[in-house]
Amino acid sequence: MKIAIDGMGGDRAPKVIIDGVVAGAKEYDYNLILVGDKTVLRRELSRYPRYPSNISIAHASEVIAMDEPPAVSVRRKRNSSIAVGIEMMKRGEVDAFISAGNTGAVVCAATLGLGLLRGVDRPGISIVFPTFMGVSMMIDVGANIDPRPIHLLLYGIMADAYSKYILGKPRPSIGLLSIGEEASKGTDFVKETHKLLDESRLNFVGNIEGQDVFTGRCDIILCDGFVGNVVLKVAEGIGAAITKLMKSQIKNRPLAKIGALLSKPAFIRMWKDLDYSEYGGAPLLGINGRVIISHGGSSAKAIKNAIKRAAEYKENELNKRILEELESY
Amino acid sequence: MKIAIDGMGGDRAPKVIIDGVVAGAKEYDYNLILVGDKTVLRRELSRYPRYPSNISIAHASEVIAMDEPPAVSVRRKRNSSIAVGIEMMKRGEVDAFISAGNTGAVVCAATLGLGLLRGVDRPGISIVFPTFMGVSMMIDVGANIDPRPIHLLLYGIMADAYSKYILGKPRPSIGLLSIGEEASKGTDFVKETHKLLDESRLNFVGNIEGQDVFTGRCDIILCDGFVGNVVLKVAEGIGAAITKLMKSQIKNRPLAKIGALLSKPAFIRMWKDLDYSEYGGAPLLGINGRVIISHGGSSAKAIKNAIKRAAEYKENELNKRILEELESY
Repeated sequence: MKIAIDGMGGDRAPKVIIDGVVAGAKEYDYNLILVGDKTVLRRELSRYPRYPSNISIAHASEVIAMDEPPAVSVRRKRNSSIAVGIEMMKRGEVDAFISAGNTGAVVCAATLGLGLLRGVDRPGISIVFPTFMGVSMMIDVGANIDPRPIHLLLYGIMADAYSKYILGKPRPSIGLLSIGEEASKGTDFVKETHKLLDESRLNFVGNIEGQDVFTGRCDIILCDGFVGNVVLKVAEGIGAAITKLMKSQIKNRPLAKIGALLSKPAFIRMWKDLDYSEYGGAPLLGINGRVIISHGGSSAKAIKNAIKRAAEYKENELNKRILEELESY
Repeated sequence: MKIAIDGMGGDRAPKVIIDGVVAGAKEYDYNLILVGDKTVLRRELSRYPRYPSNISIAHASEVIAMDEPPAVSVRRKRNSSIAVGIEMMKRGEVDAFISAGNTGAVVCAATLGLGLLRGVDRPGISIVFPTFMGVSMMIDVGANIDPRPIHLLLYGIMADAYSKYILGKPRPSIGLLSIGEEASKGTDFVKETHKLLDESRLNFVGNIEGQDVFTGRCDIILCDGFVGNVVLKVAEGIGAAITKLMKSQIKNRPLAKIGALLSKPAFIRMWKDLDYSEYGGAPLLGINGRVIISHGGSSAKAIKNAIKRAAEYKENELNKRILEELESY
């Protein structure tokens, strides 16, 4: 298994990326190839004098910044770490490419460089997150902000395959995010999508509302990339706010402090359960290749977990499964 | 001050509504008129043998259920508690009407029955919620799910007046909910709205992302009613999930339990801060009248608080202020 990781992408790159890759190289027996400026990456790696030998570097002289316009930067920076990583995936030199960099640029470079699976119109970013009732998936969270109903049906088919073959759910339930459970609720786009899903062979359970996204009521939640992106960031924001609030409430209140210390194991478990970003990475489904998009604010642990996700993607031959599903429609 | 309250609307009506109205009648010197089936309401009120004399009942023989199609039910049920309450507002018999019932039906009945303020195309539901940096507002959260950019500009102008004259913020900052801070990010709708806001006299601070909705970064957050509704419900769902998670974590873990008890005052304060629904009610802005929409799951306390909101709406002559602002544009 050979996995390329964008060494330059992410809010705290390359430091956190290197930390995650070193941890991953110790834990997994994969060849991990850091893509980026070799001088910078070597210097960062030198913090680990005896780093595992299954880490290597592939040079890329340019970097696409987090806030650069995706399409323009992908066209102009042919030697960016994102472009080089995608090119390695295209030539079959690696089995997967992971980036915590500019999401739009990764989607754009992957779509242009690798092309789409036959039958797919637009790729979709699917996140996997823990709930009370096991993990759920949500697609799309930002690749396609103005989709047509058929795109969501295709996302449903791809996420169904992911749930079956990677998450081990024999018949995943699929919900459509709307503002009411009735088929009559929502925008025209949602109503048309509802109809398409209803007529499909998928295990479509109907519309779900915002409060059900993170409860595990459905295995798969479908939405347009604008709404999905907002929902994801709202959840992250609330998580961060609660952490801050807890700290500020506990500070300077001795009894509360003792209380917090005593109940610490419970709360640590709780935060861990809620830390959606810790799953590691979001597969970009529909691409003729394997690309994992990690959160810009990924921790080293998230990068390590993304490596695991990338390996699962390959091991389970997900794209082959998706093509089989698509062809049977 | 005379305020009509829909006695039949809400997930736990009429019980919780009555509890809230009795609490409100004790705290405020307003005439509170419960609208609904007089037999049912009298029976519920009889739980309080000596309820305050500033509570009265206005009979309405029909009820619009929470899941009935709004437009149809409003047309058919002319004697519903919602229709009767709106009619009382129209005839000037009350200063405001509050309902925790079918939101779509309230919006529809209010729009048809009371009409819109001159210059307003569509009403908008605006929620007010606490943050680390004081209260913020979000509009629209469900009245208008497929708006045009001009609707959001008008929401901005109305929310600006609400923030100034009711929340006491001299120059409220306004953010547009999108998937990136740059003006180039988002759907065509968002980009066009951004341009309109940028050219307006409002204190528009640009796009904001999901993680900033509940941090108080902006005084006013503008979005379409579909996204706003989903965001609101996602936040509620996460709040409920955290409460459940905390309880399950603490259960059967003696040390955690002691810890939770010791830190209880801090956490109680924390949940209170996060309980967005406790603000009471969401003003339906743009209506030629005063209508407060309460959450279907409102507690008695939320209903009591909604009464306070309704009174503020009248006392501060909000609609007059909004008309002045609209005319100056």
